[in-house]
Formats: sequence, structure tokens, C-alpha cells
Amino acid sequence: MVFYALRSYAVGMTTQDIVVDRPWEAVAELVADKQAEALRAYITELPEGEAARMIAHLDDEQRQAVVELLGPEQSAWLLGSLPDAQTAEVVDDLEPETAAEILERFTSDDQADLLNAIDDDAAEAILEHMTPEAARGLRELAAYPADTAGGLMITEAVTFPDTYTVGDVVRTLRQNTTQYADMQVQYVFVTDTAKRLVGVLRMRDLLFQHDDRQIASIMIGSPLTVRDDESLDDLDALFDERAFLGVPVVDAENRLLGIVLRSAVEEAMADRANSDHLKTQGIVGGEELRSMPVRVRATRRLSWLSVNIVLNIMAATVIALYQDTLEQVIALAVFLPIISDMSGCSGNQAVAVTMRELTLNLIKPVDALWVWMKEASVGIINGLVLGSLIAVVSYFWKGNAWLGGVVGLALACNTVIAVSIGGVVPLLLKRMKMDPALAAGPILTTVTDMCGFFLTLSLASAALDKLT
Amino acid sequence: MVFYALRSYAVGMTTQDIVVDRPWEAVAELVADKQAEALRAYITELPEGEAARMIAHLDDEQRQAVVELLGPEQSAWLLGSLPDAQTAEVVDDLEPETAAEILERFTSDDQADLLNAIDDDAAEAILEHMTPEAARGLRELAAYPADTAGGLMITEAVTFPDTYTVGDVVRTLRQNTTQYADMQVQYVFVTDTAKRLVGVLRMRDLLFQHDDRQIASIMIGSPLTVRDDESLDDLDALFDERAFLGVPVVDAENRLLGIVLRSAVEEAMADRANSDHLKTQGIVGGEELRSMPVRVRATRRLSWLSVNIVLNIMAATVIALYQDTLEQVIALAVFLPIISDMSGCSGNQAVAVTMRELTLNLIKPVDALWVWMKEASVGIINGLVLGSLIAVVSYFWKGNAWLGGVVGLALACNTVIAVSIGGVVPLLLKRMKMDPALAAGPILTTVTDMCGFFLTLSLASAALDKLT
Repeated sequence: MVFYALRSYAVGMTTQDIVVDRPWEAVAELVADKQAEALRAYITELPEGEAARMIAHLDDEQRQAVVELLGPEQSAWLLGSLPDAQTAEVVDDLEPETAAEILERFTSDDQADLLNAIDDDAAEAILEHMTPEAARGLRELAAYPADTAGGLMITEAVTFPDTYTVGDVVRTLRQNTTQYADMQVQYVFVTDTAKRLVGVLRMRDLLFQHDDRQIASIMIGSPLTVRDDESLDDLDALFDERAFLGVPVVDAENRLLGIVLRSAVEEAMADRANSDHLKTQGIVGGEELRSMPVRVRATRRLSWLSVNIVLNIMAATVIALYQDTLEQVIALAVFLPIISDMSGCSGNQAVAVTMRELTLNLIKPVDALWVWMKEASVGIINGLVLGSLIAVVSYFWKGNAWLGGVVGLALACNTVIAVSIGGVVPLLLKRMKMDPALAAGPILTTVTDMCGFFLTLSLASAALDKLT
Repeated sequence: MVFYALRSYAVGMTTQDIVVDRPWEAVAELVADKQAEALRAYITELPEGEAARMIAHLDDEQRQAVVELLGPEQSAWLLGSLPDAQTAEVVDDLEPETAAEILERFTSDDQADLLNAIDDDAAEAILEHMTPEAARGLRELAAYPADTAGGLMITEAVTFPDTYTVGDVVRTLRQNTTQYADMQVQYVFVTDTAKRLVGVLRMRDLLFQHDDRQIASIMIGSPLTVRDDESLDDLDALFDERAFLGVPVVDAENRLLGIVLRSAVEEAMADRANSDHLKTQGIVGGEELRSMPVRVRATRRLSWLSVNIVLNIMAATVIALYQDTLEQVIALAVFLPIISDMSGCSGNQAVAVTMRELTLNLIKPVDALWVWMKEASVGIINGLVLGSLIAVVSYFWKGNAWLGGVVGLALACNTVIAVSIGGVVPLLLKRMKMDPALAAGPILTTVTDMCGFFLTLSLASAALDKLT
């Protein structure tokens, strides 16, 4: 969450770097003593970035007490500076009435994101403590999928009828300075009598015009708009190609629903990249904070691990099939984990590059063949180098050139297989509408393990009389 | 690179989704025929996001030909819409004169980033084709480390002396509309006769004031500033806590050097997260595009793989020490790769959460003990579940409860070890000023492999008479 409202350009900043190794202890004490004023001062003077760490170390009850002591205004400021997942954790446990008071101080998109991030029951309880009008608007906003223009937009747009003059607009803005001060006013939108969007003005265009001009004559007519169901990917591409700070969102009748800001799109893209990365490392929900309950963390991690262990056992059955060979050349048992690990490393590099190129829009699922050729060429080079290396090591260990040949050839071939699978599988998963971040890794390791074990052990079986 | 200059709110957009599976083929044809006009039209009408994919598939010569045919203005637009690494790749190969003409159309921070991203010789050649003044400014800017306020700032700031009135400012802005139209004018800065920053005005504050007021009387005095060496982390924390769109950057004498925009900080944070992700997956430089030369890609990947294979061989020596045990209980060879893989999975989850919490400022190196306790509690649960699972599988396979006990206990213990190492090692690396993204994974897998092999094989050796 970036912030809850556009504040004035504030004066001064605490430059003194208070050395606080364990700020939560001081806060816990102030909370226990119900020292509201001292708590407020202490939190305001915390070095930047320390607030999140402090909250991470408090338990649920302490967090609630902090929020109650601070009051809604400063709590909103504090929560607004925390990472989204942490804000949701705190708000989830608050009294609905307190939560509603804080929520009112966030921008509409942050409100909607937060309601979607917390428990459905908690969200419902909070909505019941808001004005019916605010609750209705928020329900509508929260109903949009998070990665669409509707889910990303803020509804705080300033609109004027197309009959106004520059003077009318400036007067209205002046009369409502306090109201507009909290809004991200970069653009002013112009609507016709049916509330349809007909034009747009930048704030500073108003500066450069005389009061009696009709805004209809200086506005940019038929402005670029997006529909509320426009996808995050399309919005990202749009902002990459055009230097807008925001784009108006309209419904099917061209009525203005809100504005998608460039910053909201960039933040959502960064969030998605982070969540994808955490998924590739086995964090299933795409986010885990250590302040979450142990039960939740263990269950979510296990849901990934249990799939992996089943796949691992499947891959290991290949070894079981070659027990006779292994019994005769026990040295192979030393190389099997190396071949499995190294193929995994090579394959993961290819997965990472494909995921990155997908994010950057450099490739699409139809480019699988191109990706495969690019990967194969790297795989052949790296396979030869790594295969030779392991062959030499094994020769020096056992003095048997055939053993070196078997493990070297197996690793070389399996490196090519691993980068091919690693490069291409995310594209295939994406084409099948599955999540490549979550599924590519397990598929990669299972298939490359099976191939690696099979190559090593079947080559060894074929050359068995040279190895014993 | 977001964009090269703030453009006006442009009209219309190509909504027709041209179905282009292989746009680079059409472009290659147009380039071969030197059809400048048709090429321009084709590229402009490409669906959003397709330009990067098209460039990715062209070879160096074709890219150069595209830039020459398009001319500097449209090339700047095209390059500005590409990912940074790709822009650098293209610019690296251009004639310095052409590159300089394009570069001039970027904002100062994008220019500096680009010069830092390309070859030093190429950068020098480009600078020689710019005006001495522009080259000097750019050299200064490019000398700042990328992750400091100086490296992130734009130098396009609008300043006025503190003796001006609102009317003076508005008149000056009006007279120079075209010049300012390309600048990100959100704030206007006020300086004294010694060019020191004394105040700041938002553009819209000018709207709400009468012409004859002194700007010194309505400006925000002693505004928040940052020094040019302020770190990216501190800037991120600053923007998290305060709702500014930008912050002025000053030198030791409080002279205005430029502005750091919120968007620049957010982009830099996202870039760093991406580069960290890629490093954890073994992409050493933090970025790889498949359009880079095979030699470069293979070498960079190998630099990581070769370290890993050495570490892998070290870990596998533990197995070699227990060859006698393995010979007698060959079934253990089936379980060693499973234990190695599963411990790696558990440990990587812990690494991912630590890296994430570091990014979010939720933990610091001093919190290692807290992290370890949080990880150990999850590790004990998951270790018991995974250990029991593998014990049951092994019992059903071989009918020997002792074998099940050995592998189950080994996996259970090693899971706790793996999450402990995974959770804590990135913090230790950070404290030692090493890059946790690059080093945590290899350290984790090596240590957990060694421990896993040792636990399994020494437990098996101890219970050898029950296993045979």
C-alpha cells in the first residue's frame, strides 16, 4: 500500500537515526502502560522503515492495543506505511468499528484491496460500520478482479460539466481546496449531460488559459480510455508505450468509473513478480510473513512439499529398478544426487529466464520452439563442460575411464534435457492456463531426475563389465 | 525505462488487435526493402507489448536497420517502451552519432542509466557526439551509484528565485509551455540568490493564489530534502511513510541537484527484486535475455554452475565415506536423492521468506534468533509429517520398520536443519555484506546435503544389523 491520501508537502523529517534494535519492546511497554501520547511520539520518531519491523514482532493483542491508543488518524498513517499483507493481518483482528474508521482514510483502491485481502466475515462486518453509500461503492469496487482496470482504479476523479469555463473550474477547485487536497488531482475530467466522458484536462493546462475560455474548447476530446475489464498486462503495455500518469476507466456506455494510475499498475506488476517468485520457491499463496500463525505457515508450506515428495518418490523408483547395477557399481550412488542436483540447477536457470522474458513480454507460448533452440545451444555447451568435469573427477577417484564416461555422458545429456524442459515447460503451462510459477519447478525436477537416473544407470548397465 | 519524456495526453489508440504471430518477419521484410514509411506505420500499429517481442527476435543488423529507418524521434519512442536490458543491447550496437541523437530524447536519469548499462567505450563514443554541456552533466549523473538519490534523480527541475510573485511564475510557465511540456512538472522549486533551495510549491498551489502574492509567502519553506548519496533503501522507506510524488536532492551546500520521483524509487525497487530473484535461480548478472550471444549466456550460467558442481561433489564425498553401509543396504541409494531434494525444497521456502521479509524491511540481520525460532517451529511440524510419510513408503516397499525409521528420522531432522539454515543464512550473508540472493542457495544445498547424507548413512550404520 503506497499511502492513504496525498498529503501536503510536509516540513522537516527526523534525521537523527535513533538506534533501536528492538523497538517492539519499547512499544510493548508503552502499550502496557497505556501511554497514548508517548506511543504516538515514539512511533513518529522511529527511523523510516522501522515501523514494519516493529509491528512484525508484536503479537495480535499488542497490535490491537497500538491501533486503539494511536486513534484512527495516526493508525491509518501507520498501517498505510506497512506492506499490504501486514496491513491485512492487523486489520483482520481489529474491531469492525475501529477498522472502518481507519479504512475511511484510505483511497478507494486501497480500501478495496484490503477488504479482499482479509477474511470475508471481517470484511462484511467492516462494511456494516460504513455509510451505506460508501459500503455500496466499495462492494462494487471489491467485486472487480484485482488484476483488471476496475480492480486497480481509484474512484476519486474530479469531473466538471462541459459547459464550464476555466474560471468556473478554478473557482470550484479553490472553494474546495481541503476536499481536493486529499485527492490525486492530476487530471480533470469533462462529462456531458448524460455523464459520459467527453474530454480531459491536465491541471496545469488550466494555469495557461484565461478564465473565460470554455473548457470544452481547450480539453483533449475523445481521450484515450480503458474499459473496466482491461487486464493488468494490457495496462502495463499501455503505460510502457505511452507516458501517461493515469488513464480514465469507463463502462460500456462511456461513463467515467475512475482512474487507473501508472503507479497502481507498476505496483501491481511488482507485486505479481514478487508473488510469482515466492511461488517458484514453494510459497503457495505467493506471500508468507513469519508473524502469521505457525499452523497456517506449516500447512501452506506442506501443501507444496507433499506434492514434491510424491514426485520425488516417483523419480526415485527409477533407481529402485536398477538395484542390481547399483549393487555392482556402488560408486554410482555417489553420483546420482550430483546429477540430480546439477540438472536441477541448469533447468532452474532456464525456468528463471523464461519467467523473466514472459514478464517482459519478450516471448509468448507460441515461441516455444525458438526458446528451445536458444536453450539447447547453451545446454550443449554447459553440458559438455559439466560432463567433462564430473568425468575427470570420477576418473581420478576410481581410476576407471568407463565410469567417467558414463557419468559424464549422463550429466551432459541430462543438462540439455534440463534446460529444454526448464525453458519450454513454463510456456506450455501458460498455454494450458496453468500457473507456471507454481508448477514449472516440480515438473522440471521430476522429469530431469527420472531422465538423469535412467541415463546414468542404463549406461552403466550397458557398460557393466567395464565398470566392475 | 518508463518513458523518455512526459507526452501530452494523446488522442485515440489502436484498439484493433492485429493478429501478429511473428511480427519480426514482417519487420525484417520491410527493413530489407528499406520501406521507412511502411515500417513506421507497422510498428506504430503493433498491439501494445509486441514491440519488445519483435525486437527480441531480430538480429543485431536488423535492429540497427530498424533504428536508422525509423529516425531518432520514433526510435526513441520505440526504445523507451522496451525493457532496460533490451534497450541497452540495441544502443550498444548503434553508431555513436545515431545513439546520441536518440539518447537526447530521454530524461536525464534514463540517459545516465543507459550509459551505465552499455559498454564503456560505446558510452564514451556517444558522449563525444553530444554537446559538451550535456556530456558534462551526463558524466556527473552517470558517476553516481545507481542505487543512490543521485543515481535515481532527474535533473529537469523548474526553479524560480524567491523574489518572484505568483504572477511572475505563471507568466514564465506560460511563455515556455513547450519547454515545460516535456518535463515532469509537479513541483516548482524556490531558490535564494546563492542558488540554495529555500522552498517548494506544488503546481496546483499556484492555481489557488492571486497573481500578486510573493511565492516566498505561499511556498513550503525548509522543505524535506535528501542528499545525493541517500540510499535506495532509505528513499523507499521515506516514500512508504510519506505521500510525496517526489523529493528534491541537494548537495552539502543545500543547492538543488535534481528530483527523485516516487516512480523512480518504485521502479528501482522492483528492478532490484527481479534481479535478486534471477540471482537466486543462478542468473549471475541479475538479467539474461535470450537475444544475448550464446557465448555470453553460457559463460555466465557456467560461472554459477561450476561453483555448484564443486559444492555438490564436496557434499557427495559424505556418501563415498559410507560405501560399506550402502553396499549392504542398497535401498538407501534410492532415498539419498529424495532426502537431498526435499531438504532443498524446505530450505528454499525459508530462504524465500527471509529474502521477502528483508525486502519488506520486516527483519534485519540482528533478528536471526527470532527468525530461527519461527523457522524451527514450522520445521518440526513439516519434518514430522514428511519423515512419517517417507517412513511409511519405505516400510511398504521393503517391509523393514528399521529402514523406515532411519530414513524418516533422517528426513525429519534434516528438514529442521534445512529451514534453520535457509531462514538464517541470508541474514548472516547480509551482515557480512555479501549478496544473499547469490550465495544463500548454494550454501543451503551443500550444507543440507551433507547433513542429510550423514544423518541417513550414520543412522543406517548404527542400525546395520537390523537393516540387513
